[in-house]
Amino acid sequence: MFLRIATRRAFAHCAPFPQRSHDCGTLNASHVGSRVILAGWLLPGRKGKLVSFFPLKDSYGTTQLIVNHSQGFAELSALADVPVESSVLIEGEVRLRPQEARRSGSTGEIDVQVERFTVLNSASTLPFTPSNPFNLPNDDLRARYRYLDLRRTALSDNIKKRSQVAHLIRNMLHDQAFLEVETPVLLRSSPEGAREFLVPTRVSVTGSSRSDTSASERPLFYALQQSPQQPKQLLICSGGVDRYFQMAKCFRDEDGRKDRQPEFTQVDLEMAYVSWGQTDPITSEFSDAWRIGGTEVREVVETLIRKIWSRMESITLPDQFRVMTYREAMTRYGSDKPDTRFGLEIINITPHLPPDIRSAYERNEEVLECIIVRKSSDSEFIRASKACKDDFDTCHINHSQSTAQTWLRDSDLGCEALKGLTTDGQVQMNTALKLRYGDDIWLSKRSRLPKGGSTSLGRVRLHVSELAQSHGDFTITKDPHFLWITEFPLFTRTDADKDFLAKGRWSSSHHPFTAPMWQDIEAMYRGDIEQVRGQHYDLVLNGMEIGGGSVRVHDAAMQEYIFEKVLQLSDQEKAPFDHLLHALQCGAPPHGGIALGFDRLMAILCGTQSIRDVIAFPKTSTGTDLLFKSPATVNEDVLYQYGLRSRTGSNTDKA
Amino acid sequence: MFLRIATRRAFAHCAPFPQRSHDCGTLNASHVGSRVILAGWLLPGRKGKLVSFFPLKDSYGTTQLIVNHSQGFAELSALADVPVESSVLIEGEVRLRPQEARRSGSTGEIDVQVERFTVLNSASTLPFTPSNPFNLPNDDLRARYRYLDLRRTALSDNIKKRSQVAHLIRNMLHDQAFLEVETPVLLRSSPEGAREFLVPTRVSVTGSSRSDTSASERPLFYALQQSPQQPKQLLICSGGVDRYFQMAKCFRDEDGRKDRQPEFTQVDLEMAYVSWGQTDPITSEFSDAWRIGGTEVREVVETLIRKIWSRMESITLPDQFRVMTYREAMTRYGSDKPDTRFGLEIINITPHLPPDIRSAYERNEEVLECIIVRKSSDSEFIRASKACKDDFDTCHINHSQSTAQTWLRDSDLGCEALKGLTTDGQVQMNTALKLRYGDDIWLSKRSRLPKGGSTSLGRVRLHVSELAQSHGDFTITKDPHFLWITEFPLFTRTDADKDFLAKGRWSSSHHPFTAPMWQDIEAMYRGDIEQVRGQHYDLVLNGMEIGGGSVRVHDAAMQEYIFEKVLQLSDQEKAPFDHLLHALQCGAPPHGGIALGFDRLMAILCGTQSIRDVIAFPKTSTGTDLLFKSPATVNEDVLYQYGLRSRTGSNTDKA
Repeated sequence: MFLRIATRRAFAHCAPFPQRSHDCGTLNASHVGSRVILAGWLLPGRKGKLVSFFPLKDSYGTTQLIVNHSQGFAELSALADVPVESSVLIEGEVRLRPQEARRSGSTGEIDVQVERFTVLNSASTLPFTPSNPFNLPNDDLRARYRYLDLRRTALSDNIKKRSQVAHLIRNMLHDQAFLEVETPVLLRSSPEGAREFLVPTRVSVTGSSRSDTSASERPLFYALQQSPQQPKQLLICSGGVDRYFQMAKCFRDEDGRKDRQPEFTQVDLEMAYVSWGQTDPITSEFSDAWRIGGTEVREVVETLIRKIWSRMESITLPDQFRVMTYREAMTRYGSDKPDTRFGLEIINITPHLPPDIRSAYERNEEVLECIIVRKSSDSEFIRASKACKDDFDTCHINHSQSTAQTWLRDSDLGCEALKGLTTDGQVQMNTALKLRYGDDIWLSKRSRLPKGGSTSLGRVRLHVSELAQSHGDFTITKDPHFLWITEFPLFTRTDADKDFLAKGRWSSSHHPFTAPMWQDIEAMYRGDIEQVRGQHYDLVLNGMEIGGGSVRVHDAAMQEYIFEKVLQLSDQEKAPFDHLLHALQCGAPPHGGIALGFDRLMAILCGTQSIRDVIAFPKTSTGTDLLFKSPATVNEDVLYQYGLRSRTGSNTDKA
Repeated sequence: MFLRIATRRAFAHCAPFPQRSHDCGTLNASHVGSRVILAGWLLPGRKGKLVSFFPLKDSYGTTQLIVNHSQGFAELSALADVPVESSVLIEGEVRLRPQEARRSGSTGEIDVQVERFTVLNSASTLPFTPSNPFNLPNDDLRARYRYLDLRRTALSDNIKKRSQVAHLIRNMLHDQAFLEVETPVLLRSSPEGAREFLVPTRVSVTGSSRSDTSASERPLFYALQQSPQQPKQLLICSGGVDRYFQMAKCFRDEDGRKDRQPEFTQVDLEMAYVSWGQTDPITSEFSDAWRIGGTEVREVVETLIRKIWSRMESITLPDQFRVMTYREAMTRYGSDKPDTRFGLEIINITPHLPPDIRSAYERNEEVLECIIVRKSSDSEFIRASKACKDDFDTCHINHSQSTAQTWLRDSDLGCEALKGLTTDGQVQMNTALKLRYGDDIWLSKRSRLPKGGSTSLGRVRLHVSELAQSHGDFTITKDPHFLWITEFPLFTRTDADKDFLAKGRWSSSHHPFTAPMWQDIEAMYRGDIEQVRGQHYDLVLNGMEIGGGSVRVHDAAMQEYIFEKVLQLSDQEKAPFDHLLHALQCGAPPHGGIALGFDRLMAILCGTQSIRDVIAFPKTSTGTDLLFKSPATVNEDVLYQYGLRSRTGSNTDKA
């Protein structure tokens, strides 16, 4: 049966061999006495005169092999000469280990006494030994030999966990009547968000290009989907699918950002007829702080997250997650994804100022705010606060006796009016703020309506906390603080990432399909664009955004108004949305959805900083794949088929 | 609560509304008396003087609404003016229908008496009415308005079924310890199979391109994965994953073939340590006709297919599927994906010929074969056979009295030696073949070793069967005849599709990673390339290939021999496989896998001819998306960022 074929290289066994009877993860004391067939990788062993021991590792666990060197077993001794990390097939008998040799875990109670073995594939010299956790090479080398790095249990456990969580998500969504629907990866170029990847085709049209007055063959391109946003909305508009989901592969051609991948996975949902939820039967009022539509999305996501944390982390999360408006988050934490696991909340000083000074701020539409690191109650942060470098837009004062009566007046962040603050006024402020000598104060000024993702004091707050943690003064809880942020501004002029498309016009804070809060619809039609809040919701965990979504515009006239009057899109810019506009006119239901970043979610569940540790074959932050050596050059004759040539290549037409 | 916002267009309701209490698919007699909230699309109703009836359709079913026109319900009469296919929210009470008005199905037993309604979104004039199955527009119009077409239950049912089957597959594979692992879509160009799609990046390298002697910036490209073949093999080589699967999106840039899509989905599997199975405990022999490795893949796929057919079709499939060698399939059915649901088997005449004539054929390495359509036992095919147009390489004879003694001699397909066939010899042949007057005979000649996917007689066989079915003479069974085809030739010179890469050299029949049968390894090293059969297996259902896979080469030296000596790849062509070769040297386990075409599988389960009917947003056979209007042109300034320009565009460098 163990026929050997004469191959040129004697190291691999290419002839028939029998099926494994067990794996190394399940073999235990209940199998003692059985003859078993195992297959796996041979790890470094302890070689003795009478017996040798070798761990055999497979994808499920490790089993200790015993080789007897006594007479009649000469052939078996050759196992000691097989290179480490070779693939071997073992036949032998399961034995109970002597009491003193037992190790924890069920596989630690037994050995397998080797009776026959076959080297299925001999390992040559390896660039590194994955079974040795104490001598790991650098990231680049491990990325290049990812197939060896994945042999490390620490990494392969993440891949296993990812599969388990994906399955958990799918089961839960199926149970809630969601259909998984695949949407096109090869889509059309559409200016709705980040930069997209193009895919040339061998098809072209005749037409004059902008940069060329003569008629010419213009090649045609697909674009890789940035997200299934439009397909999923069309699917719900169709009425054919009431609840859609997809573990969707998405693509963005972003300039090397830390811990971003050009392709990533999101748990993508969309639901028809999302509503304001059930009303209180007596008051007919909608409940709690969630004052927007999409309550069904909230319920599904909370159930999903609760189930994942319960199953994978044995943590019971609250029945409802906390909800906070964007305004409150920015005001109290200076961030639209606040880490609520610690205090150091921001205080608005403006109301405490004397009326004349206060009104000066109000005229400028500004507020003066501070963080007080109190010697008494925030002692774990005091050292960090003192050591923290001043942020550009903040003022840092130690509340000593000498500064007690002048700190506010002397700060150069206040407006001119602040110079007129009397010593009495200052003392009253100190009283109102309950300041004590030795407290550390961070002062800052900002526009009354919060904008963007964070404020100066928000960044100071995080910086002080991180410093306190690295000093060992403060240990932050690992408890998951889930939080919804709602009522974001619907439009923005401050997002630098979007300006390559917006070119100075208003742009959508998230995307142009997000519905305004119904309370703000009139403001939008009035032209008070800055006032308009969207029915958008972000899910935040411990200071990280792990998902975001919204109720969509389902009114075709409103969607058109947003495109034309608010975003001022040209006809050409609007064209990719024509089919969506038409779909809205076909009786589209109110609908909404969300996308959760699956890679980030898995990184959190695997307790790793980098999403690269939860992706089987990741790329570097610059989009390079060191294993597959992509991206790579392509011959000009291949480009020719796509109607293209390199910009700086030869101009010779090869037709 | 039903606040109305003054929008520019009065047709959409953008203010709060309550959650649905039920859906139209589940509401039944048990809910009689309940007040319910439903939402859905209003279908054409019957308007009466006292009461009107409207069907309300949602994604789950249809419920009949009743509107009472008597006094005090004036407001409700307005429902009759709401355009068909509008989205409406209904509040009302469930009533049992009068006995005579009940329809089959649980939702046919009740009505909902409307008490309030809200038009959530009014439909404008639609390009066609999806609720009218008798007036469907042409394919192009339906493709353009796919979101309306998907409102048709016939189509949305396919999308639902697809989700259910995908979930069934995932559940089953998870239960069998498979991990679902995502592999990169953005991969590196690799010449292993079909033509691939390229993805330009904004990164370039300095180097001289072939067509240009001066140094220049050469843009870099990803390629979209054609299949996760290399990643999945590397994953198994790593040892981190023992059983891999993925519902994988794959991409091929093929010239418009009927019913192919540029992106498609496969159920992709790979398993470590696939073996020759369990041996017979007494004889130590491996069982049945499956004489290659990969028995674990066979078991998993058969279990999977059995489960799908049991659950979706209520059909119990056999415990083991039939196995047939490529040679037998080509000899008996003239096809490597034979439809075994009917006879008309091919008969090799050569052995019946007189020795001198037979040996003439043998010298030429040829065989003479025929299909006999017998008047007695194949009566359902006789009319079709007579009507069938002659295939180019076949000869068609009606076995009448006048041809009885000459038909074989007179056929112009035989070799010269056949001219010497005596009348006696001919009569003996007739006896051996049990020919009767009126039988129809198809004659053909082919090389002894079968090549490619079908023979002339194989095509005639299918043609006659199709014709007989279209005549109504023959009804083919719908029973699923599953069949494994094994022992394919490992290399080929006859695949026109592969010649753009092979350029006259040998190419792999499937891909270069398929292992030879161990019996043929020596022949391969000897250079008898034509003799070598691979450990490849195709799964065939009723004449359609629904999947294929193989045991892979795990011996690095053998893999290198195949690249260099058999396929004669240049160093440049071999480069994309370097990491795989190295992975094999790191103690790679023997491994194998399979990929099942999920779109085709779903088309079969949905009883449709076209895979477009089981894809939410398909493209036409030329790769055009009529809904999203892709592919599309791109401005030259965008191409510029990727280091590209159109071939016939302006030559002006814009730097």
